[in-house]
Amino acid sequence: MGKYVFGVDVGGTSVKLGLFDVEGELLDKWEIPTRTENGGSAILPDVAKSVKAKIAEKGIAVADVAGVGLGAPGPIDAQGVVYNAVNLGWGVFSIKDTLSELLGLPVMAGNDANVAALGEMWKGGGQGYKNVVAVTLGTGVGGGIIVEGKILTGSTGAGGEIGHIHVEDREEEACNCKNFGCLEQYTSATGIVRLAKRRLAMDDKPSAIRRDKISAKTVFDAVKAGDEVAMEVAKQFGEYLGKGLAAIAGVLNPEIFVIGGGVSKAGEVLFDYIVPPFKRTVFQGCRKVEFALATLGNDAGIYGAAKLVLGE
Amino acid sequence: MGKYVFGVDVGGTSVKLGLFDVEGELLDKWEIPTRTENGGSAILPDVAKSVKAKIAEKGIAVADVAGVGLGAPGPIDAQGVVYNAVNLGWGVFSIKDTLSELLGLPVMAGNDANVAALGEMWKGGGQGYKNVVAVTLGTGVGGGIIVEGKILTGSTGAGGEIGHIHVEDREEEACNCKNFGCLEQYTSATGIVRLAKRRLAMDDKPSAIRRDKISAKTVFDAVKAGDEVAMEVAKQFGEYLGKGLAAIAGVLNPEIFVIGGGVSKAGEVLFDYIVPPFKRTVFQGCRKVEFALATLGNDAGIYGAAKLVLGE
Repeated sequence: MGKYVFGVDVGGTSVKLGLFDVEGELLDKWEIPTRTENGGSAILPDVAKSVKAKIAEKGIAVADVAGVGLGAPGPIDAQGVVYNAVNLGWGVFSIKDTLSELLGLPVMAGNDANVAALGEMWKGGGQGYKNVVAVTLGTGVGGGIIVEGKILTGSTGAGGEIGHIHVEDREEEACNCKNFGCLEQYTSATGIVRLAKRRLAMDDKPSAIRRDKISAKTVFDAVKAGDEVAMEVAKQFGEYLGKGLAAIAGVLNPEIFVIGGGVSKAGEVLFDYIVPPFKRTVFQGCRKVEFALATLGNDAGIYGAAKLVLGE
Repeated sequence: MGKYVFGVDVGGTSVKLGLFDVEGELLDKWEIPTRTENGGSAILPDVAKSVKAKIAEKGIAVADVAGVGLGAPGPIDAQGVVYNAVNLGWGVFSIKDTLSELLGLPVMAGNDANVAALGEMWKGGGQGYKNVVAVTLGTGVGGGIIVEGKILTGSTGAGGEIGHIHVEDREEEACNCKNFGCLEQYTSATGIVRLAKRRLAMDDKPSAIRRDKISAKTVFDAVKAGDEVAMEVAKQFGEYLGKGLAAIAGVLNPEIFVIGGGVSKAGEVLFDYIVPPFKRTVFQGCRKVEFALATLGNDAGIYGAAKLVLGE
């Protein structure tokens, strides 16, 4: 085992890179642009070039590098093969083999949401636990499942896609995934805005959120100020998410849920709304589970990618 | 690795035992009574005695026995420690260590539903797959989850308790688990009877199931005969189960669902009711999943217990 490890998080517009020691201390981080043109064929060569440049800059012996971990958006199986990462232009190929050949170093790869969950387990909100469900409440709702310290990849790389659990039979608007009534439609940042608009349209009750620009932030700011309409919206959000997480807990029996993404900036107040419906509906044998906020923010991906290489 | 392996399935009234070769051929099977008195303290000594007697009877060299696997009802963690198996009178202790000491052989232990799922993966309805969700529709609804060929035990041994996923907000009758609206309340053998009684009480529409004794069998027999009321009941059953399995698929991304238990004797007709709501609500990336009937019946437990010892 070497002294250093690289974590790489490939996004649609930029690639984040981190240099870590094997204890998980972040020694340096930087970004390069993601060149998605030509089927994304420049992305991995750009990553390899940037990693090599950092090795040279820091005067690190290549033999001291344990390897490079990489997370990317799209289904990536346990062998490091990606299956059509549409945002990057990628088709089907082995990220692990391709990047390893470019670098002459061991490479591990995984789906970005799963890799971020691993990062939160290692050095973030789930530190000290081995059975973790990470929930990302952003523009959409993503998830990553860690079982006994390892990512649950799923048979086609779609494990942990909890945003598209069906939670509402009466939905008439389609989700981005084309189904109706997905968890994401009520608990993502955009989902919360939808809930707020629907609530506001019901009557004329005065509320701080009755204005042109509604966001998840304005809703939870109003909740904290005691706004009744905003609290009704938060209650709906919490009912959907709490019951959804209870179902997940019944299946996986995790130790902790780690809540991240833009919506999680609202803070602990989220738990006031999520935990009661969770406790009401969860199987008793799976009731002993913690709730925590994610702490690594946008760095979760590079931490998790590095941890992929290091293993358990 | 030896030539033989024993699989033991401890139930509330009898213990099933099987002698297998390491390829999984069942060479012999038999039963002994489960003595639950005195905190179930005689159960493991009885098992040890019975295994030793079989070894002597068959003239097997002890060195040729790879080990003994055991499944029992209750939460049992990945280390083979049981946590209060109330039906057996057991408190908290290591099944693995206790039985291993009695036998002088390697022992593995797991929850009976999880172990039966492993059996169905190995030699039953899930043969050839490594990511399997087994669903047992009996008096209750149980489950077992196999990920990459291994049981998902969960942090407190309650992984795969899918019968208590919350699926109905409007339920006014409590489940055995004390919650309201669990999957088990609509899709177990008793749940199907409840649905049938509720449907029959709605009006006087003639039906073959409008009689004193309703069971899951009478309902599905009537479905096969084209009985409209029975088909309405089956449709409700399928809506609950199909949507529940879709949620599970979104979390785990399995290759196959294997449906067992008494209700599964109805056969393939179940899928006519389960699969359409499943397909309608499952996340597209997890849509490619097979449905099969369990094939090992009451032997799934001894098969899975033997497989526990053999590993992947």
